[in-house]
Amino acid sequence: MTYTPTDYDPYDFANRRHIGPTPEEMAQMLEALGCDSLGQLIDQTIPEGLRQADPLTWPPLSEGALLAKLRAVGAKNKVMTSLIGQGYYGTVTPPAILRNIFENPAWYTAYTPYQPEIAQGRLEALLNFQTMVADLTGLPVANASLLDESTACAEAMVMAQRLAKSKAQAFFVDENCHPQNIAVMQTRAAPLGIDVIVGAPDSLDADTVFGAIFQYPGTYGDLRDFRPQIDALHNAKALAIMATDLLALTMIREPGSLGADIAVGSAQRFGVPMGYGGPHAAFMSCRDEYKRAMPGRIVGVSIDARGNRAYRLSLQTREQHIRREKATSNVCTAQALLAVMASMYAVFHGPKGLRAIAERVHFRTQRLYHALRAAGARVMVKDFFDTITVDVGVGQAGILAAARQEGLNLRRIGSTHVGISLDETTDEQVLIAVLRVFGIEGVPPHRAELGFDETFLRDSDYLTHPIFHMNRAETEMMRYMRRLSDRDLALDRAMIPLGSCTMKLNAAAEMIPLSWPEFSSLHPFCPADQAQGYAQAISDLKAKLCEITGYDAMSMQPNSGAQGEYAGLLTIQAYQRARGQGHRDVCLIPVSAHGTNPASAQMCGMKVVVVKSSATGDVDLDDFREKAAKAGDRLAACMITYPSTHGVFEQTVREVCAITHDHGGQVYIDGANLNAMVGLVKPGEIGGDVSHLNLHKTFAIPHGGGGPGMGPIGVKAHLAPFLPGHPETGGAEGPVSAAPYGSASILLISWAYCLMMGGAGLTQATRVAILNANYIAARLRGAYDILFMGNKGRVAHECILDTRPFAKAGITVDDIAKRLIDNGFHAPTMSWPVAGTLMVEPTESETKVEIDRFITALLAIRDEIRAVEDGTMDAENNPLKHAPHTVEDLVADWDRPYSREAGCFPPGSFRGDKYWPPVGRVDNVFGDRNLVCTCPPVESYIDAAE
Amino acid sequence: MTYTPTDYDPYDFANRRHIGPTPEEMAQMLEALGCDSLGQLIDQTIPEGLRQADPLTWPPLSEGALLAKLRAVGAKNKVMTSLIGQGYYGTVTPPAILRNIFENPAWYTAYTPYQPEIAQGRLEALLNFQTMVADLTGLPVANASLLDESTACAEAMVMAQRLAKSKAQAFFVDENCHPQNIAVMQTRAAPLGIDVIVGAPDSLDADTVFGAIFQYPGTYGDLRDFRPQIDALHNAKALAIMATDLLALTMIREPGSLGADIAVGSAQRFGVPMGYGGPHAAFMSCRDEYKRAMPGRIVGVSIDARGNRAYRLSLQTREQHIRREKATSNVCTAQALLAVMASMYAVFHGPKGLRAIAERVHFRTQRLYHALRAAGARVMVKDFFDTITVDVGVGQAGILAAARQEGLNLRRIGSTHVGISLDETTDEQVLIAVLRVFGIEGVPPHRAELGFDETFLRDSDYLTHPIFHMNRAETEMMRYMRRLSDRDLALDRAMIPLGSCTMKLNAAAEMIPLSWPEFSSLHPFCPADQAQGYAQAISDLKAKLCEITGYDAMSMQPNSGAQGEYAGLLTIQAYQRARGQGHRDVCLIPVSAHGTNPASAQMCGMKVVVVKSSATGDVDLDDFREKAAKAGDRLAACMITYPSTHGVFEQTVREVCAITHDHGGQVYIDGANLNAMVGLVKPGEIGGDVSHLNLHKTFAIPHGGGGPGMGPIGVKAHLAPFLPGHPETGGAEGPVSAAPYGSASILLISWAYCLMMGGAGLTQATRVAILNANYIAARLRGAYDILFMGNKGRVAHECILDTRPFAKAGITVDDIAKRLIDNGFHAPTMSWPVAGTLMVEPTESETKVEIDRFITALLAIRDEIRAVEDGTMDAENNPLKHAPHTVEDLVADWDRPYSREAGCFPPGSFRGDKYWPPVGRVDNVFGDRNLVCTCPPVESYIDAAE
Repeated sequence: MTYTPTDYDPYDFANRRHIGPTPEEMAQMLEALGCDSLGQLIDQTIPEGLRQADPLTWPPLSEGALLAKLRAVGAKNKVMTSLIGQGYYGTVTPPAILRNIFENPAWYTAYTPYQPEIAQGRLEALLNFQTMVADLTGLPVANASLLDESTACAEAMVMAQRLAKSKAQAFFVDENCHPQNIAVMQTRAAPLGIDVIVGAPDSLDADTVFGAIFQYPGTYGDLRDFRPQIDALHNAKALAIMATDLLALTMIREPGSLGADIAVGSAQRFGVPMGYGGPHAAFMSCRDEYKRAMPGRIVGVSIDARGNRAYRLSLQTREQHIRREKATSNVCTAQALLAVMASMYAVFHGPKGLRAIAERVHFRTQRLYHALRAAGARVMVKDFFDTITVDVGVGQAGILAAARQEGLNLRRIGSTHVGISLDETTDEQVLIAVLRVFGIEGVPPHRAELGFDETFLRDSDYLTHPIFHMNRAETEMMRYMRRLSDRDLALDRAMIPLGSCTMKLNAAAEMIPLSWPEFSSLHPFCPADQAQGYAQAISDLKAKLCEITGYDAMSMQPNSGAQGEYAGLLTIQAYQRARGQGHRDVCLIPVSAHGTNPASAQMCGMKVVVVKSSATGDVDLDDFREKAAKAGDRLAACMITYPSTHGVFEQTVREVCAITHDHGGQVYIDGANLNAMVGLVKPGEIGGDVSHLNLHKTFAIPHGGGGPGMGPIGVKAHLAPFLPGHPETGGAEGPVSAAPYGSASILLISWAYCLMMGGAGLTQATRVAILNANYIAARLRGAYDILFMGNKGRVAHECILDTRPFAKAGITVDDIAKRLIDNGFHAPTMSWPVAGTLMVEPTESETKVEIDRFITALLAIRDEIRAVEDGTMDAENNPLKHAPHTVEDLVADWDRPYSREAGCFPPGSFRGDKYWPPVGRVDNVFGDRNLVCTCPPVESYIDAAE
Repeated sequence: MTYTPTDYDPYDFANRRHIGPTPEEMAQMLEALGCDSLGQLIDQTIPEGLRQADPLTWPPLSEGALLAKLRAVGAKNKVMTSLIGQGYYGTVTPPAILRNIFENPAWYTAYTPYQPEIAQGRLEALLNFQTMVADLTGLPVANASLLDESTACAEAMVMAQRLAKSKAQAFFVDENCHPQNIAVMQTRAAPLGIDVIVGAPDSLDADTVFGAIFQYPGTYGDLRDFRPQIDALHNAKALAIMATDLLALTMIREPGSLGADIAVGSAQRFGVPMGYGGPHAAFMSCRDEYKRAMPGRIVGVSIDARGNRAYRLSLQTREQHIRREKATSNVCTAQALLAVMASMYAVFHGPKGLRAIAERVHFRTQRLYHALRAAGARVMVKDFFDTITVDVGVGQAGILAAARQEGLNLRRIGSTHVGISLDETTDEQVLIAVLRVFGIEGVPPHRAELGFDETFLRDSDYLTHPIFHMNRAETEMMRYMRRLSDRDLALDRAMIPLGSCTMKLNAAAEMIPLSWPEFSSLHPFCPADQAQGYAQAISDLKAKLCEITGYDAMSMQPNSGAQGEYAGLLTIQAYQRARGQGHRDVCLIPVSAHGTNPASAQMCGMKVVVVKSSATGDVDLDDFREKAAKAGDRLAACMITYPSTHGVFEQTVREVCAITHDHGGQVYIDGANLNAMVGLVKPGEIGGDVSHLNLHKTFAIPHGGGGPGMGPIGVKAHLAPFLPGHPETGGAEGPVSAAPYGSASILLISWAYCLMMGGAGLTQATRVAILNANYIAARLRGAYDILFMGNKGRVAHECILDTRPFAKAGITVDDIAKRLIDNGFHAPTMSWPVAGTLMVEPTESETKVEIDRFITALLAIRDEIRAVEDGTMDAENNPLKHAPHTVEDLVADWDRPYSREAGCFPPGSFRGDKYWPPVGRVDNVFGDRNLVCTCPPVESYIDAAE
C-alpha cells in the first residue's frame, strides 16, 4: 500500500524548539500586521540594497546529532592533570552546586539583577561573594566580580591612576605577576600613556609611579613580604595593588593587613572548572574610601516599601549610565553565575573547610619541595604556598615529556625551568607521579612544618558571618539554593523582554556539554595537542561567524561585549599605526550609542566626538558629515550600532560608512543588535570593518544572572594581522583577556546553537524576531506611542514605548516596570536609549501566547494609567505606585481604593502559578545613602517564625 | 615552623554532607534526651544481644573520588547500538526533559502524591500519561504506570482471572510474546494454580481459558490480526489482553478497536533511556467497566474546598490500604518519574511528531526488509512495524560477530535466527551498517509502501487533547515543566517526615552518573562482555549489602519492595519444595504488618494467618507460638518487620524466629525499616532467612514522586539456589521482573551511597536516624501521646503520635496533615500502622534546624487543637479545618474568626520563602464518585486571565 508520510520533522530544532511561534501563530501575527507573508514584512523592514545576496549555507543538526557530535569532538581533547598553575587550578565543584546552580535554568537564564524585587536570590548569593572576598583579602569593600584576573589587574591599575595623589605617569608591575596579567596591563596602559615598569619588587622606585601591583603568591611560587614597598608607595602617595589567591589567603596574611589598597584575583579555584580559560569570576576589593571608584557592580543592602531588608545593586547609576566620554572603564558586566558558584563553594566548606583544603594543598607542596630538594633538585622558591619552580637546565624538555607520560602537565618556564602548582584535586597518586618524573620513587614523608616563614601566617579570622557557618549538610544547602532561586524571576518562568539584551532561549542541548570533563577540565595553557577538540570547535565557530557577518577573520578572546568594543578599537588603532596614521585619534559616536562605546574609545585614548540623532532617531547625516570633515585626518573610527539602538534599520548606514572611509577612518559596527541581521544583512558587507558579536545575546549563551558573556570580534582582512595576541599563543598585538580564547568553554554553547539551527534556521530566527517585535508594536500602538519606526512603519527586532506622556499624571517608567512584576514579567529596558521610555525586545524564542500575555498586561497598565490621568484613581494610592504587590500586602490590613484581587492579579498574570516577589519596591536612595555591601551583621537566613 | 593542621575533612561525605545534624547539634539533642552520648542512646534503644559484633569494613570515598571511580567503571561498559528490541529500544530523551525533569530534584525527590494539595504538578503530568496511554491503546481508562511490561502482563493475567465470567483455570499466552513476559507470567501463575498454555495464536481454544494475552507487534516482528481470537474469547466469557507498543500504535490499529479488554506495555521508548533494564514506566489500560479492578494508581480529577479543579489519586483506598489477605496484587508503587518523562515526551512531540517518528522507524525497517529479501535473505515476517527476524541458519554466530564489528547488537533467536529492531535513533549509517553485516553494500532506496497490510493501519485520532497540541517551543515547554514542579512540595524544599518511607537525602553525586551514556544506553540483554562496568557495580553492591544484612546471597531483580517480598516468599517456597516440604502453605503475619506482606503471601498462594499485637505494640508472643503450633508442618514462613512497623526494636525477635524455625518455617524479615539497623544489627544474624531491602528508602534512591524503587532480596546460603532466575541469564527458578537486574541503572545510586558513606558512615547514619527520631519524640511528648516506646523509653528511627484523643473535639488526622502544609511540610504517614495516628520518620539527613521547625509547627497545631477543645476556637471555622490556606483565601473576603496572618503563617512556616499550595483541601468523595482519569475535556493549561 502506498502511504503518504507525515510532512513534519520532529527533530527540527530551529523550527520546533528554538523559534517560539508556530506557523499558525505566525500567520495570525502577520495578519495583525497586514502582511501577506514574512518575506513581505522583512522587505518592509530592511531597506533595499542592504540584504545579503546568498543564504547561509550549513545544514541543521538535531539535538541528538548535536550531542553525538559534541561527544566526538570532546573525545579529541585529552584530559590530563594540569599542574601548570599560573592562575588556573584544578578544583572540585561540589556536585550539589553543579546540579543545582550550574545546570539549573533558574540560575543560568536569569538576567542582571537591575530589577531587585525579582532578583533577591542572586543578590544574596552575590553579597555572600562580596563578603567572602572582603574577608579573605582583608579589605572592606568588594565588588560582585569582574571578567578575569588579568582585566581586574588592568582595572585596578586605572583605578589607582584615578585615585592616587601622586602625579607620576608610570605604573610598576612586579615581574612575578602572571605573564598574562602583565601583558593585559601593558595592552591597557599603552593607549592611556601609562608607562609600565616591569621589574623585581626590590627595584621599585615609589616616587616615580602612581601605583604598583604585586602578585602574592608570585607566579613562580614565591611568597614575598611587600610591606616595605607598600610603605614606600604610600609615602609617595601612590597606591599598592596585590593580585592574590583566595585559597592561599586562608593561610597567609591578607593584603589588607599588609597595607594594600586594592586586591584583585580569580575565584576560579573555588569550585569553578578551568574550562580551557573560563568563564570564572575575578574579584576586586579595596579600602572603604575608594569604593566609589571601583569598577563593576556592587550589591548592597537597602529596604523595601514596608521597611524590610532588601538587596539591590548599589551605586547603580555609575554603571548602567556609564560615564560615557569621561569613563575610565567600560566594565558593564560581571561573572555573576560563576561568582554565585564560588560563593556557594565558600558557604559549602566554611572557613574551617577552606583552610583544611588549603592545608592539604600546602602540605603536599611542602612534601614535594623537600623530596625534590633531598634528591638534589634546584628548587627556586623559599617561602611558598602551592607552587614551586625547579631549575632543570637542559632537562626541561625531558621533564615535560616524562610528565606527559604520567598524565601530567607541568608549566614550562623559560627554557630551563619548570613550575609545579598543586591544587585541591592533587592526591597522593599525583604527588608520587610528579616525583617519579624527577626520578624519585616512593611516598615522601608527611611533615608538620609550614613551607613558609611564620611571618606570612595569617592570624586574623575570616568568614565569620553566620552564612558561612550554616549547617552544610547537602539537604540544607540544596534547600538554600532552591530558596534563593525561587526568589528570582528568570527566563525559565517568563519572557524577559529587554531591549538590546536579546533574552532568547538557552536550550538544554546547548548547555549539557559544558558539564563534561572533556571540556570543563582543560587548563587554558595546556599543550595544543591536548585541545584538538576545542581547536575544531573554535575554528568551525569562527568560520560560521565569518559567514554570518561577512568578515574575514575573528578573534575569540574578548570575554564580554564591551571587551569586544575595546579590542576592536585597539585593532583599528594598530592598523592605523601600521599604515603610518597613528596620529588619528577621533572617534565619532552617535548620541544614541551604548554607553560602553564612548567608554571603550576613551580606554583607547581616543577623543570621542558625539554625533546627533535626527528627529526620526537616525544618525543625523549632516552632523555626521560635518564632524567627520572636521576631524579630517585625525578621524580614526566611527562606532555605530546596526540596526540602531533605536531599533530601526537606518537607510543611511552605507553613507555613514562611506563618509568615514572617505576620511580615512575605520567603521566599527556594534553587534549588539545582530539578532536582527543574521542571515539577512552582513555588517561586513554594508561597510563595517570590525564588529563585536555578543554571543550571550545573539548566540544563545545564557546571561547567568549578570554574566558570563563573550564578545568576539570579526574584522575585514586588512585588520586581521592586528587582532589581539596572547603570551601563550603568540601574535603581534597584546592580549585583552587572561586566556587566549576568553571564556572558551561557553563558546560551545554558541557553536551548538549555530550547528542545530543551520544557516536557514538562523535566518528564520532573525525573521521571526522581527515579526515578534513588529507584532508587539502593532498591538500596542494607540495605547502607547511607538518611537522610531522605519519609513515603512516597521521596527527592527525591538520597539520603544514612550512613557513620557504619563509624567503629567505622575506615572513614571519605574511604576510601569514594577507593575509588570505583578504580571510576572521582567520589565523591558528602562529609559534607554531615550529617557522615559521602555524598549521591548521579545526575540524569536517567545511564543505568541506569552507575547499576548505581555500585551494584555501592558494594555491593562495603560488602562490604569488612564484612570489616574482622568482622576478616577488616586494619584498616589493606586496599583501602579504600590507595585509590586507582595504576600505581605495581602496579609496586612488593606486600606487601598482598589481590591486585593485587582492589585495582585492584573490581567495577564498567572493565578495558581503566580510569581510573588519576596520584597516590595526597593528604596534606591536609602541604599545608596547607607552603603552596606557585605552580609549584614545580624542575620537569620532562615526566616522561620519562632 | 611546626603547625597544627585543622582537624577537619572537608571531603567527608558521610559526616559533612549526608548526615544532617552537626556534632554541636547532636550534643544539644542528646542533652534534650538526657543522654551522655550517642552510644548510650543506642544502647537504650536496641536490646542487648542483637547488636552485630563487627563494624562494617569498607572505607569512605569523597564525592570527587566517587565520580572518578564511576567514570572508570562506566568506561568498562561498551556503548553499542543495540537493535535487540524485545521490549527495549534506543530513544532520544529530549535534552530539556533530561535537564528539567530527570536531573531536577524538584521532580525526583518528591514523594508519592498521596497529599494532593502539594502534588498538583506531578498529578497533572501523570494524568497526561494516562490520557496518552488511553488514547494510544484505544481503551478509556489507564493507570499511572506499573513496574515493567512483564509484571504488567502478569497483573493483567490476574486481573482477567478476577474479572472473567469464564470459570476456566487456564490462561493462554501467545508464543510471540517477549520471552521475559512469558516467563514472568509463568512465575506468577504457578503458585496461584493458573495453568499457562503457551502456543501459536491459532491454537487457542477459547473455551478452556479465562483469558489470553497476545503481543502486538509480536516479539519476532510479526503483526497479526487477533480479532478472531478476541471474538472467540469473548464468546467464551474470557478476557483478551494485548501487550503492545506505544510507538507502533501511532500507525497501527489500536487494541481497543480490535476488541481487547486490557492493554499493557512499556513506555520506555518514549524518551526513557534503556538503562540496562530500567527503570521505565509500564502501562495498563482497560475497558471502563473494569477500572475498579485495575492494579496500581489512578490519577483522577476532583475539586477543592473552593470548588476549583484539583487532581488527586482516585480510588486510593484500594491501594494504600491494600486489601491484605484478599489481595490479588501487591502493587503499591509505580514508576512515576519515568511516566512523567514519557508523558512529557508525548507533549513535546504531539501526535504528529510521534507519528513522524514512527514512520521514520517503520520506513527504515521496510527498506531493510526489502534490501534483505532482494539479497535472498530468509526474512521471516510478513507484516511488521519495526522488527524483522531473519533465518540465517548456521550463519548465526558469524552474523552476530560481524554485527558487533560494526558496533551493533542484533538479537540472537534460537540457534539459527537473528532479530533486528530499529528505533528512533536508527539513522542511515546504522541502516547501512546492518546491511553490510549481511554482505549488502550501499543505501537501500526509499519506498512509499507500508510494511504491513492496510487492514492494520490505524484510522482513529489520538492525543487530541489540547495539552498535546500546546506550543512545543522549548521556552514554553521549559516553563510548563517549571510551573508543574513549582506546584509540588518535594524534599528539595522541606522535610518529608514520612514514617516507614525514609525520605533521606538523594545526593547530587549519586544521581549524576545516571545521565552518562555508559550507563544509560545499555540494552538489558546485551552481551555480558559489554556490561563489565555494571557487573562490577552490581557485584560490589551485592557484597556490601550482604555484609550489611548478614546474608550470603543477593538477588537484584525485584524492582520494588513489594516485588522483593514476593520474590522472597517464592524463594522460600522453592526451598521448601526442594526439601520435600512443598505442602507447607501457612504464612504467619503480625497484624501491624505492611499491607503488602499479606498481599505478597497471597500471590504465592499462601494462607495468611494473622498474629496479634500485644498492648506494647510487639508481636504477641503467646499468640504467635499458638498459631505456629497450630500451623505445624504446614508452616511455610513468617513475615515480620524489624524494627517493627510500630517503630520499636522488639525484645522478642529472636524468639519469634526460633519458634518459626522450630516448626520448619522460614523467617522473612521485611527490610522496610533497615535504616534503623545498618551497621548495628544484621537481620541475617538475628534469625532472618530472607529480607528485601528497599533501596529507595535505606539506600538513597529518590522516590521520584512515586517510583522508581528497587527491592533486592538477601538470603542465607541455603536459599541461594532458589533465587529468581531469568531467561536471559539462566537459573533454576523463574523471573519476577522483566530484566535480570530489575531497574539496573538506579542500583548505581545505592552503590554510590554505600561507597561514599563507607561502613562507618553508614553506621553513624543509622545512629543519627535513631537520634533524630528520639529527639522528636522527646520534644513532642506531653503535647502528643507517643505510642509504642521500647522498654527503656526509646523509639527506633520513627515515632507514632496519637491523634485519636482529638476526635472528641472533631479534629482528625487529616486536619493536622493539611495544617502542616501551611507550615510548608509534607504530612507524616497517616493512620498507619494504627488508625488515627501520625508516624514520623525524620531520617539522619534532616538537620536540627529543620526538625525544630517541624516541632514548632506541631506544637503550635497542638495549641490550636487545644483552643478547639476548650471552645475558644470554633469547631468548624478554624485554621485546622480550613487548612491548607491558599492565595485564593488571602485574596478573597475574609470572614473567619482568626486573622489571615494566623491562617497563613503559623509558627514554623517560612515567610518570604513560603510554599503556597495551588489548591485548597481536595474533596476525596467527589473525586471517587465522579471518576475522570484522563485530561478533562475543556482545559486551559495557561491560566492567564484574558
